[in-house]
Amino acid sequence: MKAYKDYTTDELNALYRSLLVQYKEYQARDLQLNMARGKPCVEQLDLSMGMMDVLSGDSDLLCEDGTDCRNYGVLDGIKEAKILMADMMEVSTDNIIIYGNSSLNVMYDTISRSMTHGVMGSTPWCKLDKVKFLCPVPGYDRHFAITEYFGIEMINIPMSPEGPDMDMIERLVAEDDSIKGIWCVPKYSNPQGYSYSDLTVRRFARLKPAAQDFRIYWDNAYTIHHLYDDDQDHLIEILAECKRAGNPDLVYKFASTSKISFPGSGIAAIATSHNNMEDIRKQLCIQTIGHDKVNQLRHVRYFGDIHGMVEHMRRHADILRPKFELVERILHEEMDGLEIGTWTEPRGGYFISFDALPGCAKAIVARCKKAGVVMTGAGATYPYGIDPADSNIRIAPSYPPLPDLEIAARLFALCVKLEAAKKILTERGEAVPAK
Amino acid sequence: MKAYKDYTTDELNALYRSLLVQYKEYQARDLQLNMARGKPCVEQLDLSMGMMDVLSGDSDLLCEDGTDCRNYGVLDGIKEAKILMADMMEVSTDNIIIYGNSSLNVMYDTISRSMTHGVMGSTPWCKLDKVKFLCPVPGYDRHFAITEYFGIEMINIPMSPEGPDMDMIERLVAEDDSIKGIWCVPKYSNPQGYSYSDLTVRRFARLKPAAQDFRIYWDNAYTIHHLYDDDQDHLIEILAECKRAGNPDLVYKFASTSKISFPGSGIAAIATSHNNMEDIRKQLCIQTIGHDKVNQLRHVRYFGDIHGMVEHMRRHADILRPKFELVERILHEEMDGLEIGTWTEPRGGYFISFDALPGCAKAIVARCKKAGVVMTGAGATYPYGIDPADSNIRIAPSYPPLPDLEIAARLFALCVKLEAAKKILTERGEAVPAK
Repeated sequence: MKAYKDYTTDELNALYRSLLVQYKEYQARDLQLNMARGKPCVEQLDLSMGMMDVLSGDSDLLCEDGTDCRNYGVLDGIKEAKILMADMMEVSTDNIIIYGNSSLNVMYDTISRSMTHGVMGSTPWCKLDKVKFLCPVPGYDRHFAITEYFGIEMINIPMSPEGPDMDMIERLVAEDDSIKGIWCVPKYSNPQGYSYSDLTVRRFARLKPAAQDFRIYWDNAYTIHHLYDDDQDHLIEILAECKRAGNPDLVYKFASTSKISFPGSGIAAIATSHNNMEDIRKQLCIQTIGHDKVNQLRHVRYFGDIHGMVEHMRRHADILRPKFELVERILHEEMDGLEIGTWTEPRGGYFISFDALPGCAKAIVARCKKAGVVMTGAGATYPYGIDPADSNIRIAPSYPPLPDLEIAARLFALCVKLEAAKKILTERGEAVPAK
Repeated sequence: MKAYKDYTTDELNALYRSLLVQYKEYQARDLQLNMARGKPCVEQLDLSMGMMDVLSGDSDLLCEDGTDCRNYGVLDGIKEAKILMADMMEVSTDNIIIYGNSSLNVMYDTISRSMTHGVMGSTPWCKLDKVKFLCPVPGYDRHFAITEYFGIEMINIPMSPEGPDMDMIERLVAEDDSIKGIWCVPKYSNPQGYSYSDLTVRRFARLKPAAQDFRIYWDNAYTIHHLYDDDQDHLIEILAECKRAGNPDLVYKFASTSKISFPGSGIAAIATSHNNMEDIRKQLCIQTIGHDKVNQLRHVRYFGDIHGMVEHMRRHADILRPKFELVERILHEEMDGLEIGTWTEPRGGYFISFDALPGCAKAIVARCKKAGVVMTGAGATYPYGIDPADSNIRIAPSYPPLPDLEIAARLFALCVKLEAAKKILTERGEAVPAK
């Protein structure tokens, strides 16, 4: 295929007209498809239905140590749940606190606590004139929403397939003590599906931030969320690496079973150093008497152990893999050689990241929407919803059934083509054909 | 029985010696009993075991509106859960947000949000020099712990069987705009089991606080937690009363099913005005994608409706009532006429409040502990753990089996007697017998 930029203006005009005809055919179909959020599909949810049967009216709901999971108590999680989640998060059970149903909520609480009470004795952030966070971009919109909500200034850090720009991070945290944290999705990152390289993780562990209360927010959301059995990314375990580097308190690590059992009905956890845990517990014992231990026990009895959980994730992968491969195949079929966009092909996680020609993302997403396909809002992958290049679009292939996904992906490619042709024509000073 | 104060000093000395002999007999028994926390007992937990069976691997987990409870979404609770909790809380479904497993956590979040973001646009409390809360005393230690954690100054408000001292409250909130809230357990209060009178509730609804961001924290923890079918306290519904009084935004009402289904595995809710809900939702949508909808559905399918829930509470009452009556009977048997203590005899809730002679509470609780019976710490029912009269002790009769409870209550009475005799002897300038 010839690159669009090498088309003559007449060829581009003709192309644009024919694409517009195709687009109108899609519009006539009254589609209602959604590739916006990383939602598991119904078949994935069905995988965990056995979880509804592991506890019955005849079950004892006792932990091995005799704790009755039905009553008050146990602030930081039952021992069995700590073992399961610690294995999943690759940390010691001594370094883990089990929470409720949402790791996002744990991250929110962590920022909120730092605002009102500081970090391990530091000045509460709400008493400071300025607090800043580093935000590898593109990234996860809900992370950025938390820091924005608390009035924390966000600084974009470019991502590469190795992870965020470590030169920039090292320099910034060393020189500016108002920088208090960085949002990371280190494995199968949201949205690019990149996993941080060994060197990147090592440099993270060796950061020398000017602020004593600087913390790495390590959201390991996709730790065992591989698409392939034999082709998995490996991430160096950050807690151990920080400890080895003499920076034991530098990191909070977050995870949950939201995309393992049921989103909204899973269990979440934080893993961190003993000093940080002590700091957290001071808040936690005020905030709650304890999280849902029955649900912790339900997870433990259903999965058994980390091996059971990993086997379970193979079944998720069997459902997700064809969806990723379908979208990637269509993007190749539709766009190879056109030089109108690039995309990632991750080995895990929930997203494909697409970069359109600069200035086209908003228009592409709007065009998809007008034809009945909802994408993540353009800009959502950047702090304040502002993608400076207006280029990045997150594709979430998990939810729609394969036939719908094919339609949605083809329509998406069509919208990319239309906006690319339009952009090039406009840059050449041409009027864009109305039909 | 003759009042201790009317004993001669010789009589008191003899009495003290004989009580001490009895006490040593208890000590020799190596007791391990607990009347410290309002924990349901095993038989109460067993009442809800059917809840483990209402959802099975074959169940559909769909709401009536088609929402799949297993997936992400629904920020403020499924409709069915709103209906159930709204009926329980005596409010409209339009005025309710369903949360996770803990109403304490909702209260914490409410204070925390006010600290960082203010209330409906007011200055964030963390930016103010001084924030104060009114605390009816004796009250709930975990309430006071939240306000203490956030550095909020607490002001004691005396309780009477009608509720807190409304003259004092009206005066204080009108003259001091740094007073931002008041903690209330308006029905079967913790620890006295008092329910606010109609007049008290009406005066609450008509408060004219100097601070626009003053809110009543109405923790209706024991709303349907009656001990008697035919002798129930009735509380005027505060949201409606505030609305009628032209103060629709004055109150946050909290409740949960912690002592209905399972503590730690129930569902919690807040009920409040639309303006307050809008304010809350701005935070909530940042904090979480949603709470545990599967557990919401489990509760709805198990209880069916409010009638099912009320019937369920009759079964709780059948277990709790004999425990309350046993403790009250023993207190009467042991102490009537001695004038060494008074206590409440509530018609619902989880506690009996005992007032010893001033200056004796700490010593009584310590003495109980030395003989193997753990009571709520003396002072816990007051802000900062300081009971100015050192008189109030909270008795929690729910957890121990009846035979244990009888032993614990008799020992408690014995310790009250010992400390009363000691106090009177000391006041008369007498040395207290060593044995």
